[in-house]
Amino acid sequence: MDQERFEKQLAFILEADKEKNILRQTHLSDHGRRENDAEHAWHMAMMIYLLKEYSNESFDVAKSMMMAIIHDIVEIDAGDAYAYDMEALNSQKERERNAAKRIFGLLPDDQRDELIALFEEFEACESAEARFARVMDNFQPLLLNDSNGGNDWREHNVTYDQVTKRQMTSKLGSEQIWGYTQKLIDKNVKKGSIKN
Amino acid sequence: MDQERFEKQLAFILEADKEKNILRQTHLSDHGRRENDAEHAWHMAMMIYLLKEYSNESFDVAKSMMMAIIHDIVEIDAGDAYAYDMEALNSQKERERNAAKRIFGLLPDDQRDELIALFEEFEACESAEARFARVMDNFQPLLLNDSNGGNDWREHNVTYDQVTKRQMTSKLGSEQIWGYTQKLIDKNVKKGSIKN
Repeated sequence: MDQERFEKQLAFILEADKEKNILRQTHLSDHGRRENDAEHAWHMAMMIYLLKEYSNESFDVAKSMMMAIIHDIVEIDAGDAYAYDMEALNSQKERERNAAKRIFGLLPDDQRDELIALFEEFEACESAEARFARVMDNFQPLLLNDSNGGNDWREHNVTYDQVTKRQMTSKLGSEQIWGYTQKLIDKNVKKGSIKN
Repeated sequence: MDQERFEKQLAFILEADKEKNILRQTHLSDHGRRENDAEHAWHMAMMIYLLKEYSNESFDVAKSMMMAIIHDIVEIDAGDAYAYDMEALNSQKERERNAAKRIFGLLPDDQRDELIALFEEFEACESAEARFARVMDNFQPLLLNDSNGGNDWREHNVTYDQVTKRQMTSKLGSEQIWGYTQKLIDKNVKKGSIKN
């Protein structure tokens, strides 16, 4: 074992622990507390494995799961920007680039480059793995919101156009889950949870 | 899309959400709050991907990550038994078997069988994937404990023999990480965090 290499890997793994303290706007099922980034990523990785039959394209499952697992790590430095908060989103990209440099930079060079590439691929929806992971990034909070009677949408006055614009990227990864998503959105518009 | 099949998959995914409320004895780094099962599993899956070069055997990374992700789901019904609480551990197996039946039983039959097999393989350390996932189940809390100055061991009066017996299964999955583990244990015995 190359001790120096291993200790760099451990430094990253310990730093990543902080992601467990980054809270999202989504609440857990049964109207629970707010979810954190690590829990969201765990749920996404599980969904990638279980729902892989609905991907538009064949893909490398481990790679897509790892994308899900690390896609929010930059928020340790950059914070979580709510999907419908346009002001926060505008400055978020720059903060995330700097965060990626620092946090993935804790790893040995080869793994730093590999994880930065995974992160950027995910952000740009540039591969089959990224497109399917993105479906889960969209669909997982939708599922929790729906199970909670749409409270998170109501609280933030979210509109049909906003949800649809955000969720539409799911079409790239899974036509079938995008189809189901549209039905879930319509249901929540009818219920008044999402504004028309 | 087979709607009935998809809704069974979603029922399982929503049920799994409850794992985010199962607390472990381990505390987050920087002396944080107690960790939950979903966070622990997320961290393990990340470690499997990042540390795969240290596995004794070649293995299927996605399968091992999925094992990590679901290995504690039974605790939704069965609760978490602390690794050094012998009384709780004795009755735990029966509770976990019933939990596996109910929770994985929410899935379509083929995936129910697949996930029960993954869970049992992990428990029995019966494959290369299980052996490497087990290394992470041992090593992840060790790393957090060590980063917190060994408080969790001290609080529970954990002894060298107990830690070593538990951690020794890491040898089956990674001789190299087992070697590093022994050094970490020795360091914490010298510091008085683990009783000799």
